[in-house]
Amino acid sequence: MCQLMGMNANVPTDVMFSFTGLARRADEHKDGFGIAFFEGRGLRHFVDHHSARVSPLAELVKHYPIRSDNVIAHIRKATQGVVSLENTHPFQRELWGRYWAFAHNGDLKGFAPRLHAAFRPVGQTDSERAFCWLMQELAKSHADVPSIAELSHTLAELMPQLNRHGTFNMLLSNGQALWAHGSTKLHYLLRRHPFGRVQLQDEDLQVDLASQTTAQDRVAVVATEPLTRDEAWVAFQPGELKVFVGGEPVPAGA
Amino acid sequence: MCQLMGMNANVPTDVMFSFTGLARRADEHKDGFGIAFFEGRGLRHFVDHHSARVSPLAELVKHYPIRSDNVIAHIRKATQGVVSLENTHPFQRELWGRYWAFAHNGDLKGFAPRLHAAFRPVGQTDSERAFCWLMQELAKSHADVPSIAELSHTLAELMPQLNRHGTFNMLLSNGQALWAHGSTKLHYLLRRHPFGRVQLQDEDLQVDLASQTTAQDRVAVVATEPLTRDEAWVAFQPGELKVFVGGEPVPAGA
Repeated sequence: MCQLMGMNANVPTDVMFSFTGLARRADEHKDGFGIAFFEGRGLRHFVDHHSARVSPLAELVKHYPIRSDNVIAHIRKATQGVVSLENTHPFQRELWGRYWAFAHNGDLKGFAPRLHAAFRPVGQTDSERAFCWLMQELAKSHADVPSIAELSHTLAELMPQLNRHGTFNMLLSNGQALWAHGSTKLHYLLRRHPFGRVQLQDEDLQVDLASQTTAQDRVAVVATEPLTRDEAWVAFQPGELKVFVGGEPVPAGA
Repeated sequence: MCQLMGMNANVPTDVMFSFTGLARRADEHKDGFGIAFFEGRGLRHFVDHHSARVSPLAELVKHYPIRSDNVIAHIRKATQGVVSLENTHPFQRELWGRYWAFAHNGDLKGFAPRLHAAFRPVGQTDSERAFCWLMQELAKSHADVPSIAELSHTLAELMPQLNRHGTFNMLLSNGQALWAHGSTKLHYLLRRHPFGRVQLQDEDLQVDLASQTTAQDRVAVVATEPLTRDEAWVAFQPGELKVFVGGEPVPAGA
């Protein structure tokens, strides 16, 4: 299984600490990593088919504070598709004049939808196929840019159609919201004032969040498995879709 | 004016030397830089709205050998659109299951085409608008993946429609070929055996290409202005479209 990490915040926030925790798990997930940072409408998109343990790009992400309001990261253990750059998550497309980024953990069996519209996979993974299908169905469902609530409603209808093909833990963002779908294993955490010291689960590394934040900051972190000790990580229910805006969950599919 | 740099080669080749030469020109072009590296069908896409002189990302590109068969780089001096990540070239889209990267130097006046298909600008530049229009017109002209020759033929018809709006020096690649259109200022260079020592135009930096190449290597480099001294750079004619495949020019629009 691959590992996912997402972040949604009400002020641009760096993910050096969380990404360091995620990359620590790259021993078993050595088939590439990727991370997408939204900065307003803009997107920075780093992918490498080398392990996050050795990639110079991963070093840069751990030590260069890129502040973003929406982040999606993924470290890969290849199950479908060869180890190559075009099979490395997150994937990126443009729809309605916004970039979209997507990462998936799990396997979809026998998922071969008709892709007749403008979104075609470049690589060979079931994940990119699922992303292209999602983009196609969103484009079909809305003539023009829908609201976050409308998008969430459509996504809540689409998720079960993917999930029934296997395991579909996923993260999706267009820079305005972070959508997270739990199938078998996904957790989230809400951080807000008062911020304290937190410690990575897998490494003897602590950080004092209070020194880097203000009382108004709100950050939501999503990860396959909890990244830190002693924080209130919440497990997703099977089939649960959550939407995070400004560092907080908002009603999905309402 | 911004500065463009492109590379097309018959074996994956790094561009650390050429990019160092390009970044040297970032004193006057401080409004961001970007570089797209194709590796087969995959694409690495780095953009930063900070100057290539100070960006840690640019440092990585100068010192970490990323080997690629097609590269497009751009350093920006903003003339249209604010300095922001979404306005930073090269731009990226997917068409027919291939990524496409595009960068532009120049200005288009009164270019407001109808964009009714699947390609919409995310930022505010005339350049991204031109790229979206090119993708739309290519998609309309060919039902499925055309050959390089067919693509070149269609592009040769489209270029004048953009060029008449102003200045349209551009680089475009889908990972299989590099298309370069000269409007006012663009040069190219073909490097092949025997390789020798070359020296950057703007900096006291030399490299011995012979030590890094084999007799079979062929590399085409395109740049707004010649990057090196004592090499046979050729100026594009106004309105000239060239197509490079495997490090060599092939007939365009034939």
